[in-house]
Amino acid sequence: MATTTPAKLGRISRTHYASQLTREDIGFEVVVAGWIEDFRDIGKLGFIMLRDVTGLVQTVLKGEILLKARNIPRQSNVMIAGKVQETKAKNFAVELSVNEITILSEASLTLPIDPTGRVESNLDTRLDSRALDLRNPKVLDIFVLRSGILRIIRDFFSENNFIEVNTPKIIGSASEGGSNLFSFDYFRRKGYLAQSPQLYKEQLVLSLDRVFEIAPYFRAENSHTLRHLNEFYSVDMEAAYLDYTAVMDLVEDLVKRLIVFTKESKRVNVKNPILEPKTFEDLTQKQFPRIRYEDCINELQNLGEEVEFGQDLSDASLKKLGEKFSNFFFIVDWPLDLKPFYIHEKEDDPKMSKSFDLQFGYLELVSGGTRQHDVTKLKSRLELQGLSHESFKDHLRVFEWGMPPHSGCGLGLDRLMMVLSGVNNIRETVLYPRDTTRISP
Amino acid sequence: MATTTPAKLGRISRTHYASQLTREDIGFEVVVAGWIEDFRDIGKLGFIMLRDVTGLVQTVLKGEILLKARNIPRQSNVMIAGKVQETKAKNFAVELSVNEITILSEASLTLPIDPTGRVESNLDTRLDSRALDLRNPKVLDIFVLRSGILRIIRDFFSENNFIEVNTPKIIGSASEGGSNLFSFDYFRRKGYLAQSPQLYKEQLVLSLDRVFEIAPYFRAENSHTLRHLNEFYSVDMEAAYLDYTAVMDLVEDLVKRLIVFTKESKRVNVKNPILEPKTFEDLTQKQFPRIRYEDCINELQNLGEEVEFGQDLSDASLKKLGEKFSNFFFIVDWPLDLKPFYIHEKEDDPKMSKSFDLQFGYLELVSGGTRQHDVTKLKSRLELQGLSHESFKDHLRVFEWGMPPHSGCGLGLDRLMMVLSGVNNIRETVLYPRDTTRISP
Repeated sequence: MATTTPAKLGRISRTHYASQLTREDIGFEVVVAGWIEDFRDIGKLGFIMLRDVTGLVQTVLKGEILLKARNIPRQSNVMIAGKVQETKAKNFAVELSVNEITILSEASLTLPIDPTGRVESNLDTRLDSRALDLRNPKVLDIFVLRSGILRIIRDFFSENNFIEVNTPKIIGSASEGGSNLFSFDYFRRKGYLAQSPQLYKEQLVLSLDRVFEIAPYFRAENSHTLRHLNEFYSVDMEAAYLDYTAVMDLVEDLVKRLIVFTKESKRVNVKNPILEPKTFEDLTQKQFPRIRYEDCINELQNLGEEVEFGQDLSDASLKKLGEKFSNFFFIVDWPLDLKPFYIHEKEDDPKMSKSFDLQFGYLELVSGGTRQHDVTKLKSRLELQGLSHESFKDHLRVFEWGMPPHSGCGLGLDRLMMVLSGVNNIRETVLYPRDTTRISP
Repeated sequence: MATTTPAKLGRISRTHYASQLTREDIGFEVVVAGWIEDFRDIGKLGFIMLRDVTGLVQTVLKGEILLKARNIPRQSNVMIAGKVQETKAKNFAVELSVNEITILSEASLTLPIDPTGRVESNLDTRLDSRALDLRNPKVLDIFVLRSGILRIIRDFFSENNFIEVNTPKIIGSASEGGSNLFSFDYFRRKGYLAQSPQLYKEQLVLSLDRVFEIAPYFRAENSHTLRHLNEFYSVDMEAAYLDYTAVMDLVEDLVKRLIVFTKESKRVNVKNPILEPKTFEDLTQKQFPRIRYEDCINELQNLGEEVEFGQDLSDASLKKLGEKFSNFFFIVDWPLDLKPFYIHEKEDDPKMSKSFDLQFGYLELVSGGTRQHDVTKLKSRLELQGLSHESFKDHLRVFEWGMPPHSGCGLGLDRLMMVLSGVNNIRETVLYPRDTTRISP
């Protein structure tokens, strides 16, 4: 990382991030800034372990400066000027001999959690003090990774000629047959918070051909699990002239690229079985299995599960399938009745649909399909699902303006981050998660 | 643009976007897809002007195919296979001699607006049929530009070591002294929609050093102007160890890069005075003026405006200043009383603040400053503004954990898009704008 804009603060400026210091800097004066993770005092010498967002640097203090340092509470924010020198410490390439230490902000002596991670706290306690929790490298790495993942996803869509769009989060009707929407007073009308950009992204392919959006959505569902939040990030795409198999190809390419990026990002605190050499090679070299819904049912029946063709797959069933197809796999061609009104039927078997889910074990990561673009069929599907044309009139008219055939999908970003960072609670992947019991900080 | 994933649809696949066809393709068979913008019939020959998201292609039809084409309504979506050949048409490099035309979706014979733009409609009518309105190249270009602008902004922040974050849009207390927040029932508690990520982005610099976010925010303000929306996109940044002058440097670099990108993107339908050669050179070569608030007041008084030191600048005053400093200029060092509680005072003049606004004429684009990171001073500022510590307790405690000095700003993306695309109504820059009277489509 290069500091394009130097950190200027009064007389001195940061010149380096911790991770930038190498043996080539030996003999030079540098300035680093961050928080005191640890302080060791051996009498004539003292050692401050200074951490910043990139890593740790060992600094050596003596004389007056050591006296001053003894009074600085740990986790305080300081700027340190010093000379880079050889070190005997095993974990560092170099160390700093400190010439000056500037206290920027003293930390309280009593902190709510230990951000070094030596004393563990439960997740709720950590979330109550999330900003401090982020100083723990295990936590920090997840969010630095998330930032990189967002960049890779957008690059991928740009390369594939998708236009980034921003659709509204406040909507005027409870679309998609949506129960479970938050509602509120919007200038004496009823407004709702969108739970997906589904209708808008479909409308936009009329003219924009291929669109994508990464944005927050909202679900007023009163459930409490390790994989649901009431505010979540979704990666959505929609493309004209593609069918669902082409969308699956895109999704598979993207996910493979993200796995490779995760490995190469070397966020060492992200411990993840999918990055083990053998699994990593399998995942990135082989095609993800694409299993028809019908075959899933047969498989489950063979395994002794009580499940009938036509039923949705329960968590228990998905877990069984997850054990068999351990990592990523698609379930394709679901019964039409199990899918929303906008999904297209299979021409050769109209009770089935051109649809897919991407699973990681029992975790559903992506849902997509070919969309119905024939307005007459759309209307009868709405009726079958007990939905009124009236609440979809703004949407339906777009299909009378020359709507191209199109397909798309939505990917749960927070869930994908669970898989990529190897955690089992979605709250670990979101800075300030929102669930039925948590709305702060 | 390269089609990395070919558009496959049944027997034939799109091979080219309209704008990709060049004289090098002469003699080759290609497939394009899009909508019929125009059809001219001269008896033995017919011409379909086919438009897609990238541009227009002229296609020549005869015989059976011409007979078939006569029955296709304009704006219908079709796929056309043909051979590239020389053309006599002045506006095209080549044309297509059509071998096959596949009707993908017929448009209605009566459309609510004319998407070729020949017959103009007022904005409200266009917004009611936004998806169709986007087929107008003047409209389309704004949103293709917006997609590119988003990419350039994110690249800029990545290069400068900012980490992308996602902060919550549902919040548990009406922070920032916020009146004007939408509120709703959140599992039997009161929830609010965030109007900015201010408190969260400040908290995050405790550990993440430099953060940025581009996201939607919400303001329940009952006003109706050409530059306000009730749902809007904001570009936010916050950085440890920087002061407000360094943030202004960053903002200026970013805006200049966006102006250059807009010019280079050659979206020819984006007509914009700032892209005129002389203005463009001035804007990209010279520093944006940085005018102290005090000097603005003097200037206005000289111009005969009735304005006193200590007053906020009215729209009328900003218009006057905008006439004098025609394009981009900063107003810096505002009186502390005019700024939110989190803005830092000037050490040498504590009634004034380390703050800035970036204006484009009378339009405020960016607001930022150095933040107060001393928790005692923060608390007295809250009290002065009549705000309770209690509603900010989750926020204030973060400042006791070793909070570094920091600065940041928020940029109104939709307003910036007004400037870059040369339109005078913010609704032109948002796909589905939300104001006090509009919540659909």
